[in-house]
This record gives sequence, structure tokens and C-alpha cells, in this order.
Amino acid sequence: MSDPVACCDIGGTKILLGIIDQDSAIVAKDKYLVGDKRDPRALVAELAARLDSLLEEAGLSRREVAGLGCSMAGMIDLERGFVYSAPALGWRDVGLKDALEEALGLPVVVEMDAYAMALGEALRGAGAGRQHLVGIVVGTGIGAGLILDGRPYHGCRGLAGEFGHMILVPDGPRCNCGRYGCLEALASGTAIAARAQGALEQGRATLIGELAAECPSGVTSEVVFAAARRADRVALTVIDEAARYLGIGIANLITLLSVDTVILGGGVGHGGADLLMPRLTAVVDPHLEYWTRALDVQISVGALGEDAALIGASGAMRMALDP
Amino acid sequence: MSDPVACCDIGGTKILLGIIDQDSAIVAKDKYLVGDKRDPRALVAELAARLDSLLEEAGLSRREVAGLGCSMAGMIDLERGFVYSAPALGWRDVGLKDALEEALGLPVVVEMDAYAMALGEALRGAGAGRQHLVGIVVGTGIGAGLILDGRPYHGCRGLAGEFGHMILVPDGPRCNCGRYGCLEALASGTAIAARAQGALEQGRATLIGELAAECPSGVTSEVVFAAARRADRVALTVIDEAARYLGIGIANLITLLSVDTVILGGGVGHGGADLLMPRLTAVVDPHLEYWTRALDVQISVGALGEDAALIGASGAMRMALDP
Repeated sequence: MSDPVACCDIGGTKILLGIIDQDSAIVAKDKYLVGDKRDPRALVAELAARLDSLLEEAGLSRREVAGLGCSMAGMIDLERGFVYSAPALGWRDVGLKDALEEALGLPVVVEMDAYAMALGEALRGAGAGRQHLVGIVVGTGIGAGLILDGRPYHGCRGLAGEFGHMILVPDGPRCNCGRYGCLEALASGTAIAARAQGALEQGRATLIGELAAECPSGVTSEVVFAAARRADRVALTVIDEAARYLGIGIANLITLLSVDTVILGGGVGHGGADLLMPRLTAVVDPHLEYWTRALDVQISVGALGEDAALIGASGAMRMALDP
Repeated sequence: MSDPVACCDIGGTKILLGIIDQDSAIVAKDKYLVGDKRDPRALVAELAARLDSLLEEAGLSRREVAGLGCSMAGMIDLERGFVYSAPALGWRDVGLKDALEEALGLPVVVEMDAYAMALGEALRGAGAGRQHLVGIVVGTGIGAGLILDGRPYHGCRGLAGEFGHMILVPDGPRCNCGRYGCLEALASGTAIAARAQGALEQGRATLIGELAAECPSGVTSEVVFAAARRADRVALTVIDEAARYLGIGIANLITLLSVDTVILGGGVGHGGADLLMPRLTAVVDPHLEYWTRALDVQISVGALGEDAALIGASGAMRMALDP
């Protein structure tokens, strides 16, 4: 099946569009801000118009692409491409696949963002050639895409991959989901910011307050990373703790699933990679059994950056066309 | 492929042998004690002789069975059927598949005991018709068999399923594997016995000491279960704690893999089911996210008892013959 495939990655602030060839290479690409077109109907209409421009630029028509793969963050029924909830866009109960198919006249497959990232990295990036790998998206939340035996594993109702809601510290800090001690409450961007905010409120000596004052969003994980790069002790401690829990979570994933490749992505994963990666590497190894250590697991930041989810979405479309 | 398949389940004290038909039903079965024939060569020779008797009893010859599926506990390279270590038999570096194939003149597939159990229950037991399920063997250790998308998922080098070595309490009690806070150190038969022993040594008022005095192995999980059935407070507290950690571990499995069926087996799982099951059910649900709760996960004790691993081993053989 050699027709090119269209793809998009719908995020809370920006949308990426692409045309991908049979070798999973990007032929053409567009990126634009969602702006005030957050309403599903308006978003889909703009996406369709921009896709037509992109196709034209690539010398193609809609009839010449095999379908559209769409990467999306949120609670999604993948079979129906139905978005129950996408907090970053304020969506609830949106029939995304149907709306896109109607607007484009093309078959559409919706894939979870972490899975699209993992699949993209497996096709052309840090996981090329690997059969068993996990892509971990660390941002305001934490999610994972599981590629097992060379294919995305979605589980019942497509709900697998909720890595951020595995409980790592019973009776630990409260998570957004209402439970306690989830990894997301210990190691996400939100958790990093909350811990730094706590240290500030305790009056501890740190650059974080000063840097946050210059930043419209106040104390964020970016601010904590910036302070840490200036050797701020409080910031470094906060990052040490987050990396420790993330590392133990990753060790647990490896122990259960025997994956030999772990790829970090997401805003925090990419933005804090210089600080997180050496810490993760140091934490994961001693938390593996000795025979699992022999797998020589490769833990790295995604090699494709923002393109990973685009390429992965096209891969999901191709798999649907040719299972 | 309709030929019957032979199978065996090699445990530390007893061995089960079976002939299984195309519908995964048991045609003939034998069970015997390993006794002093623990040496791999002697064990395989006796197994071959007993299999011949069993075949004769079923009116079959070796030529009429398609192969032998073998369930085995230990650290095993499944591809080569090579047992690195099987502590219950004192084995190290045993080429089990080769030895069995040579002795029987039949193709042999070796499968991990927890996977064989899970596969057997998926074929004819508590998981019949389910696509995504986990079988959990709780005994002196804790292991899991993962059936994902209807097939055993083994991961790199067949090392997946090490559920007992997921870390649930960072800095928790020391595990046999040398690390700290593994589920196995919190909820296995060994952990239950160790916690009860600790309570005894603290001089707490409990029936456990009295019951253990009548038992050649001293304080075991069976003794703790027996005391709990007589409403012993210390025993009940020990079981509450073990069930809480096992339940959180199960909730984590469901959260990550979105399986809708969890089947408990093993000596502790079956022997303590009356005490463990109501506690597990009560713990798992509040530790799931609300949308995962909608999966209505079925948690139960295996329906096939000791036959599960036999039937599963035959299923593994059939899958190898007809992938």
C-alpha cells in the first residue's frame, strides 16, 4: 500500500498537519495555533482547509491520500474515534472521527497522543527496529504508549497506557484523579511545580520565586528546570525526587512488560531532558532485577521531537488499512 | 490441527501429566510426586515412561500426539526452553526442551507456569472468551501470565510477567531479589509468614504460635489463614495488609494494561481464596480511575485448579504448531 497518508496532531495550543510517504518520511508539514477555533466544528473546518493547502503544496489531491491518522490527547474511545473528554481544548463528547471523515471524505483513524509518539519513534526514531517499547509522555500529566510485539497494545476499550495513574506510593500525595500516590502526582510537570510552590511557601531560599515572578504562568516546571540549571539547591532536590519516582515507575514497566526501549517525550520530557535523563538512568538500573538488567534497556529522549506523533498517526492509519 | 497434545506441569514437589484434545479438554491425566528423582535426567526419564503409560491408557501412541507442552516455574529462556534456574527443584542451566524432545521424539514447547495457568483459564476456565487477562500465581513468590489481544505476551527474552517484582513501596521491606518494596515482599506467602513471625516475636497475643507448633514447617501462610478463620486478630491484620498491597498491585495492572479479567491461582491464591477474594475486591475498585471502573473487571479464583497449567501448556504447544 504505497499511497501517501495524511496526518494531524491536535494539541491544546497547536495543531500539526503532515503528509507522510510509505517509508514514514514527512513529505509536507504545517503547524498552526489553535487560537480561538477550539470549537470542534470550527477546528475541523480549519484543519480540512489547511490540509487542502498542504496537499496542493505537495502536488497531491485528497483522492491521492489513503486516509488521515489523527493523534489526540484525552479520554477517547479509539474504535469509534469518539472523544469523551479533552481537557486541553475543553472538549466533551466529540465525535472526532465522524466529523473528520465527513469534512474530508477520507477514512480516519484516531490514536492516543502517547501511542502516536511511541509508534512514530518505533517507525523512524529512537525505537526503530525494536519490537517491545514504551513511549512516555511527561507534561502536565503522564501517559504511555505501549508497543508490544511490534504493534500498539490498547487493551479493553482502548484504555491501556495509563502509566501516570499507577499508584507508586500508597497514601501518597493526592492526584488530580482523586486518588493518592499516582505517579502523575509525584513526577508530572504539575507535581514538579506543586512541590516547588510548597518549598517557596515554606520560605526556603531558592531562585524559583525570583524566576517565577518574570514568568506569566508563575511557578511551572520550566521555572524549576531553569533554577536547577543555575544550581539552585531547592530546584535540584525537587527534580531529584520527581526523577526518582519516574525512574521507579519506568523500572516497574520494564519488570512487568520486559520492554527493552523506553522513549521519553512531552513538554517536560523534552524540556527537562538535560536534567531528567542522567537522573533516570541512575535510578532505573538499581531498581531492576539482575536478569532484567541484562536486557540492557535503552532509555532516551525521543529522536523525532514534535514529528513523532505525526509519523505515528500515519502509521496507525496504515495499520488500520492493512492490518 | 486436531491431533491430541500431551502436556506436563513440573512443580517442585509434584508433576502432572495430561493428554488434551482439540477442544482443550483433558482426555487422560496422571499426577505423581517428584520424590528423589529431581535430577533433570532422571526426572525426564520417569516423565517419558509415565507419559507412555498414560498414552497407552488413552489408546494412543506417541506418533498420534502433535507435541508436548510443558509448564515450568523458574527463570527460563522460553525460545530455547532452557531453564537458567528453578529453585524449587534445585536446577541450574538445564536444557529442558532438548532433553524432553530427545526422550520423547516429539516437538516440545516450554511455558512459564503463570502463563500456562492464565492460558488454560483463558481456554476453558474463568477467562473463557476474554481477550485481555492476567493470571496471578501467588505462592512463595508472585508471578503473572499476561494474555493480551488473545495471546500470551512474553516481551524481550520472555522475561515479562514479573509482577511480584514491581516496586510498590519504595524503601519498603527487603525482597528475596535484593531490592526493597517489591510486591512479593509485601503480599506473597513468604511475606505473610514473615509478617506473622514478626508479630509472634513481638509477643503479640495470637493463635499463630500454637497452630505453628503443630505444623512441621512452623509459621506458614496456611497457618496464618487457619488462625484467621478462627477470628485471630493478628492473623486477620496480616492478611488485610497483604491483600491491600496485592489489590493495589492488581489495580496498577488494570490501569496500565486495561485487562478486564484477573484470575488468582497458586497455593496461596487457592488456599486463602476465602479470605483474600473479598478483601481484594474491596481494595481494587477504589484504586481504579472512574473510567477504568466502567470496565467492570472480573476478579476471581481460577476455575480449573491444578488443571489450568496443564491445559494452558497444551495451548502453548498448539499455538507453536499453528501460530
